[in-house]
Amino acid sequence: MNETNINNTQQNLNEKIESLNLEIDKLNNESKNNWELFVRCKAEMENLKKRTDKEILNTSNFALQNILCDFIPLLDSFELCFKKKTEDNLINIDGVILMHKMLLNILDKYNLKKISTEENEKLDISKHEAISVEYKDDIEEDDTIKTVLQNGYILNDRVLRYVKVSVLKRKN
Amino acid sequence: MNETNINNTQQNLNEKIESLNLEIDKLNNESKNNWELFVRCKAEMENLKKRTDKEILNTSNFALQNILCDFIPLLDSFELCFKKKTEDNLINIDGVILMHKMLLNILDKYNLKKISTEENEKLDISKHEAISVEYKDDIEEDDTIKTVLQNGYILNDRVLRYVKVSVLKRKN
Repeated sequence: MNETNINNTQQNLNEKIESLNLEIDKLNNESKNNWELFVRCKAEMENLKKRTDKEILNTSNFALQNILCDFIPLLDSFELCFKKKTEDNLINIDGVILMHKMLLNILDKYNLKKISTEENEKLDISKHEAISVEYKDDIEEDDTIKTVLQNGYILNDRVLRYVKVSVLKRKN
Repeated sequence: MNETNINNTQQNLNEKIESLNLEIDKLNNESKNNWELFVRCKAEMENLKKRTDKEILNTSNFALQNILCDFIPLLDSFELCFKKKTEDNLINIDGVILMHKMLLNILDKYNLKKISTEENEKLDISKHEAISVEYKDDIEEDDTIKTVLQNGYILNDRVLRYVKVSVLKRKN
């Protein structure tokens, strides 16, 4: 090896080292930036969790607050109704009809609906609950509803109380 | 420089390069791991946001569902009450008192309370709203409550309706 060659080789190696050091600096920065992104994301998530818990509590409180507010006029009507009682402790039905309407309106506002059930309708276990059975000869179809014993109610698509009914079955 | 020295120097440089390459591999892995941590955190956060929106909706629905369920027996009582009316369309007060109690019990369960207000109490604008004023000579203190005109209600610490009152003021 002549001296020029030796120098060239050493220079090449030194340049290589320099370039590798630059690469290391770059990677160090990149790794640090990625770590910082992660740490920031983690902190944001913690904040989000805290906010969420608070928001859930607020949502529940707000829903209740609204519906409870709606019932205050009904309380007033009851008090008014009592003031209008006769000496025999009787109350004219009009006031009670009015209160009933107020109650229905509030519940309707929140989408609570009476499940409409016709007599002679076929029993549908997704909304009816048969609590008594009567056997007869002249029934066309089994499980026909004879009487609604207690009304049922539905909120959006969820049955809150099943309609209690008596059904007819064919005598064998 | 003798040949041994040259070889030693070149060997040192090559070893340095090897060690730098190892360092680069390590940093590449580290940076990649940090990036993956960040990406996973970001995905978790997106999921959390989606779950949160759903949870908030559920919470609100669940709060309403519970309270609406509680009102179903009151609907039954109204219907029962109507069945018991006399021929003169009068209703015995007992049924109405019972319904009033049912309503109060439900509202009490959700912490809605009547704001208790005594006559001769000092007006407190955090819960009272004076809607009429009477001027008199013999008033000890201004803004003494004369009469409660409409009841007020409080839910937890929040006034849902202020107590409407008439107040007394000294005649000058």
